[in-house]
Amino acid sequence: MTRTVRRPARPSLTEGRAAARPRALTRTLLPGENGAGTVRKTVLPGGLRVVTETVPSVRSVSFGIWAHVGSRDETPTLNGATHYLEHVLFKGTSRRTALDISAALDEVGGELNAFTAKEFTCYYARVLDSDLPLAIDVICDMLTDSLLLPEEVDAERGVILEEIAMTDDDPGDGVHDLFAQTVLGDSPLGRPVLGTVETVEGLTRDRIARFYRKHYDPTRLVVTAAGNLDHASVVRRVRAAFDRAGALERTDAEPCEPRGGARTLRAAGRVGVLDRRTEQAHVVLGLPGVSRSDERRWALSVLSTALGGGMSSRLFQEIREKRGLAYSVYSYTSGYADCGLFGIYAGCRPNQVQDVLAICREQLALIAEEGLSAEELRRATGQLAGSTMLGLEDPGALMHRLGKSEICWGSQLSLDEMLTRMTSVTVDDVRQVAGEILGHRPSLAAIGPFTARQSSRLETAVA
Amino acid sequence: MTRTVRRPARPSLTEGRAAARPRALTRTLLPGENGAGTVRKTVLPGGLRVVTETVPSVRSVSFGIWAHVGSRDETPTLNGATHYLEHVLFKGTSRRTALDISAALDEVGGELNAFTAKEFTCYYARVLDSDLPLAIDVICDMLTDSLLLPEEVDAERGVILEEIAMTDDDPGDGVHDLFAQTVLGDSPLGRPVLGTVETVEGLTRDRIARFYRKHYDPTRLVVTAAGNLDHASVVRRVRAAFDRAGALERTDAEPCEPRGGARTLRAAGRVGVLDRRTEQAHVVLGLPGVSRSDERRWALSVLSTALGGGMSSRLFQEIREKRGLAYSVYSYTSGYADCGLFGIYAGCRPNQVQDVLAICREQLALIAEEGLSAEELRRATGQLAGSTMLGLEDPGALMHRLGKSEICWGSQLSLDEMLTRMTSVTVDDVRQVAGEILGHRPSLAAIGPFTARQSSRLETAVA
Repeated sequence: MTRTVRRPARPSLTEGRAAARPRALTRTLLPGENGAGTVRKTVLPGGLRVVTETVPSVRSVSFGIWAHVGSRDETPTLNGATHYLEHVLFKGTSRRTALDISAALDEVGGELNAFTAKEFTCYYARVLDSDLPLAIDVICDMLTDSLLLPEEVDAERGVILEEIAMTDDDPGDGVHDLFAQTVLGDSPLGRPVLGTVETVEGLTRDRIARFYRKHYDPTRLVVTAAGNLDHASVVRRVRAAFDRAGALERTDAEPCEPRGGARTLRAAGRVGVLDRRTEQAHVVLGLPGVSRSDERRWALSVLSTALGGGMSSRLFQEIREKRGLAYSVYSYTSGYADCGLFGIYAGCRPNQVQDVLAICREQLALIAEEGLSAEELRRATGQLAGSTMLGLEDPGALMHRLGKSEICWGSQLSLDEMLTRMTSVTVDDVRQVAGEILGHRPSLAAIGPFTARQSSRLETAVA
Repeated sequence: MTRTVRRPARPSLTEGRAAARPRALTRTLLPGENGAGTVRKTVLPGGLRVVTETVPSVRSVSFGIWAHVGSRDETPTLNGATHYLEHVLFKGTSRRTALDISAALDEVGGELNAFTAKEFTCYYARVLDSDLPLAIDVICDMLTDSLLLPEEVDAERGVILEEIAMTDDDPGDGVHDLFAQTVLGDSPLGRPVLGTVETVEGLTRDRIARFYRKHYDPTRLVVTAAGNLDHASVVRRVRAAFDRAGALERTDAEPCEPRGGARTLRAAGRVGVLDRRTEQAHVVLGLPGVSRSDERRWALSVLSTALGGGMSSRLFQEIREKRGLAYSVYSYTSGYADCGLFGIYAGCRPNQVQDVLAICREQLALIAEEGLSAEELRRATGQLAGSTMLGLEDPGALMHRLGKSEICWGSQLSLDEMLTRMTSVTVDDVRQVAGEILGHRPSLAAIGPFTARQSSRLETAVA
């Protein structure tokens, strides 16, 4: 148990306590080098996981708590509850008002924030290392002892309706929601994380409180931290904070498993169009991709990089550099527990949509048939490897990776393993995944000020 | 001269060359500690400045070249030329096509980008330290030997028109342009960085080429780098790249001075409204602020932090936390060479604009009259100091600070000096600047789907 190791000076008292308290189990998942990049994981009694990575060269720490809940855990009437709850957890505990929570991190120049996704929710802070105890105390307090006061829940409803309105005003973002909905249909994964005006107006304090009690059990939480830190000290402070809230009493509880499953998406040739009086049309052309456990994800990621991952990618060159048809054009992959999406985004004037879509379809067909050249493969794997290494310098990115890996895979990949996976992808691997994924009819989501004629041509663009 | 120091093994050859070449002058501007945070500046013959900062704990470098030119250097018909040129410099040199430029940095996972502001332009890359020679070579090549091929200039026009359309679709961003225009009028500083559809359509290859020759003289450029680097080696490589283009031949040329001047803005009670079919209304309420050399900027920055700089700030608490009227609300200051702006942004549904503006005006009046409490001052200075220290860990942010400081002030402040300036601000300093700046009628910019009645009420909101 880490506690006994940390306090050798008072053996009798410490050992007496240690004997009475259930053991925490700590493992070193990745050894690191010279004290940097060491990843340790402790499972506390109560099933709470704490995963940290040391970056001794910085003076900051990024600390986060991840909840194993996202919008895909919502029923249709609860749509938006995960995100609503995320907002409300900032609004006060027995020990702190909403202002106390904000001021605590503000006054040390720290960042305190949160985000909600389809499969998880994360609350995080970035602070100077000396302020880490404060960040741990505040975030643990928010997650274990939130009051969900009715008046605060009601005031926050207005904020969330404003957030929905703001997102509606950002079609370059909203078109991805529309694409997910178009391909995934009215399923939990197809619904928007923010919910809709109707569902948010219908969410009561009681419903949100039930959702909180159900999903914020310690077995469903993962604590992560990266930066200049001491693992044992982080564990001790997190344990003390959760103990104070009586949250670790079910000492035999085990951490929950990552989501599993496999789902075959049969979507092909679907079209979703939203009419908006914007200047640009925003389109996503894409197909079902692969789940995040699918071994083909490495090859698909290389493919996506070569197709639309940088300024030298095919789509950037063909659509922007050669023809000046768009400012922003890129491809991306999203992997969920049981399925995935592959998409190409472009923003362009409505009268250029057909040209842009024709080029995208042509490139999809070319890659599905021929794959990538050896030179494209070399460049794409170099790009992925270099940007992965550059990403290691940001404790926030490391903390994010720890949390996502623990939630999604229940394990951590080392940098070397990741680089090996990326650089082992062959021309044949890419050709195979390209044929399997891209060789079908794509679906299309589009937001813009389309004429009736333009709208009907969108239907035929994926015929 | 740094070159002789770097090559002691071949004294006769090196000294022979050194004697024939004009001297570069190198100074240590900030000593740093243990090799970290050391800022050195070299002025090369030809008037080119190179400023670097060492961050030995990282494995990356951020490298940039800053041009002392922005949209305020444009005549009305040239509006957008600075930004257009920034795009075209990516489109090819005698040694590299546009694809070569992109692929060079992509294939090592580096980031290559640029931005144009009202008073400067910056081209930058972030790479692993071993790829710094490549980044230097590519960016120096782009800046000294761009071909500005007519067909590339024409293709890029479409991209820029798309960028303008994209910005038009982002009212939360565009309202800041509208506010500057409302307060600064049809002056160089009031015009948009991107230009307008009309001016961009009218910009010819020849005009852009003249603009390039005039403003990209080495005396008007500043090279900056921060990360794991050796100053002398950066200087040597930059010098070699500029020498290859024959760009350092005017050996007696001196670096240009920072812009100066002082201008009193008399704008008060002006209103700019743009009708857009958006969900939210986006408003900026504000006043003339202070120039970036005005000593009151430290106090104004503390004031802005307390008013709308974080989750515990007055505006966030009053508008979002207590009343749920907005998702995004904040205040900010912009400092230019000769004047400045102070503004409050909020995004909310159109029917709540009057409530939001009333609270903003009330808080402006309260602070103008009473200043801040000692507790607010303590919190705001702590926030500024903490976030400044956290910012030091990002080589990109350090590179940015080096360039902006050299362009705007011609000098560098140490972290300690900055912290001292921030934490020395007193309640009296804030009260004085608050009275001088905020005690006037504000102006207003608003974008949204306003009814005729709502529009006319906007006029009275700043009466």
